[in-house]
Amino acid sequence: MYDGAETFVGVTRLEYRHIAMLVMGIDTSTMQGGVALVSGQGVICDYTLNVKATYSERLLPLIDRALQDAGITVSHVEGFAVALGPGSFTGLRIGLSTAKGLAAAGGQPLVGVSTLEAMAGTLPFCAHQICPILDARKGELHCALFRCERDRLVRLTDDGTVAPDRLFSRIQEPTVFLGDGLMVYQELVQSQLNELALFPPLASRGGRAAAVAELGRRRLVQGHRDDLAHLAPQYLRPSEAELKILGSVAPRAL
Amino acid sequence: MYDGAETFVGVTRLEYRHIAMLVMGIDTSTMQGGVALVSGQGVICDYTLNVKATYSERLLPLIDRALQDAGITVSHVEGFAVALGPGSFTGLRIGLSTAKGLAAAGGQPLVGVSTLEAMAGTLPFCAHQICPILDARKGELHCALFRCERDRLVRLTDDGTVAPDRLFSRIQEPTVFLGDGLMVYQELVQSQLNELALFPPLASRGGRAAAVAELGRRRLVQGHRDDLAHLAPQYLRPSEAELKILGSVAPRAL
Repeated sequence: MYDGAETFVGVTRLEYRHIAMLVMGIDTSTMQGGVALVSGQGVICDYTLNVKATYSERLLPLIDRALQDAGITVSHVEGFAVALGPGSFTGLRIGLSTAKGLAAAGGQPLVGVSTLEAMAGTLPFCAHQICPILDARKGELHCALFRCERDRLVRLTDDGTVAPDRLFSRIQEPTVFLGDGLMVYQELVQSQLNELALFPPLASRGGRAAAVAELGRRRLVQGHRDDLAHLAPQYLRPSEAELKILGSVAPRAL
Repeated sequence: MYDGAETFVGVTRLEYRHIAMLVMGIDTSTMQGGVALVSGQGVICDYTLNVKATYSERLLPLIDRALQDAGITVSHVEGFAVALGPGSFTGLRIGLSTAKGLAAAGGQPLVGVSTLEAMAGTLPFCAHQICPILDARKGELHCALFRCERDRLVRLTDDGTVAPDRLFSRIQEPTVFLGDGLMVYQELVQSQLNELALFPPLASRGGRAAAVAELGRRRLVQGHRDDLAHLAPQYLRPSEAELKILGSVAPRAL
């Protein structure tokens, strides 16, 4: 375990962070959420739970377990990554508040990541466009489009909240759908898009805290940190917002 | 929760199993292992832990937690899927013995699945050939080759145990490597195969019990079950065994 001592020979501190940095990932965006510990060696633990219990009941016990099972205390965690949404209002507030509390107490850096981007990141080397969808209620979906280019995940659109028809009109090629939006919309997606709609196995349809940890870790090892005072959940964009397809440059705001 | 009553209207019993069947997956093949509960609705829980503690210490507590967190008892589990290896001799024995004990006590069906196939199944829609590798000690690897064809995982070779050079000589196209063999062999794979070698993000390099549950579940919903008396781990093939590339038909034995 990395104990903060700079005893590694032949590598800079940044390189060492790349090798070792231990990050806790927290995802409370949807009913399927959890806690993970990921270091440069890979996953230490990744606990995913998808039950109706609120995160106020289940998040801290899950964090406790992860630390105990890994044989460490929270002071060994070198950074926190938390899913900012879109997703459940209450879930996101609990996850972010807890992560902020831990980071503030221990002085470790914290970064927020997009829930949809972390979900897309669970399908590395995917041959098709990826569209995570979350049920936004009121007949709408939170969604975004991504594509894998070699070992890189490329974002094609910003996160958006749209009616299903609006999303479907943008799908012109085979696309893999995942996320809890499938619980409500899978049949509609299938019937509207026919052979363009692809669905992963059941085990790969939801978010994983390890993907949140991994995504955040890439920024943390570069020394980035978000401002605890100002980091806020991305609950729900205005319902009139539209999903805009982006050019090959950086994603535009909605 | 499905309580065994046939109260569903308009679906056959087999269709109902497809919809609901709750399966526990157990993976103790490598140091990264765990327990998952997967139903036709998706993942209920998926607990992955990668620490040096033995499975005799950690498996039953993890099963207990999974059941408790899901709010069920073991009698609600409708089938068991267990990873048969290749992998750690002791780990596999503990996982299979525990699964057999639970299945025998409760009368539920049990199926064994290939550890390597379950690992490959964690990369759905992968654009490239997939090669899970596990460290087999003595300078060898457990490995097999797979390919995704639309939403189906196709096995290209049987599971085999070979020297790294032997495996490398078979790799003629971009191939995604995952599994704990990367801890030992990633640099060698990279240096020997150069741009043909691809590696997933850290969060997607190991096995997940949910993938074991999913793979087993497909056989369980068809009514298959393995024979408790004869089901045995696939620890290690004879070291002289060679990885044979298969035709487009069924995999051949080594």
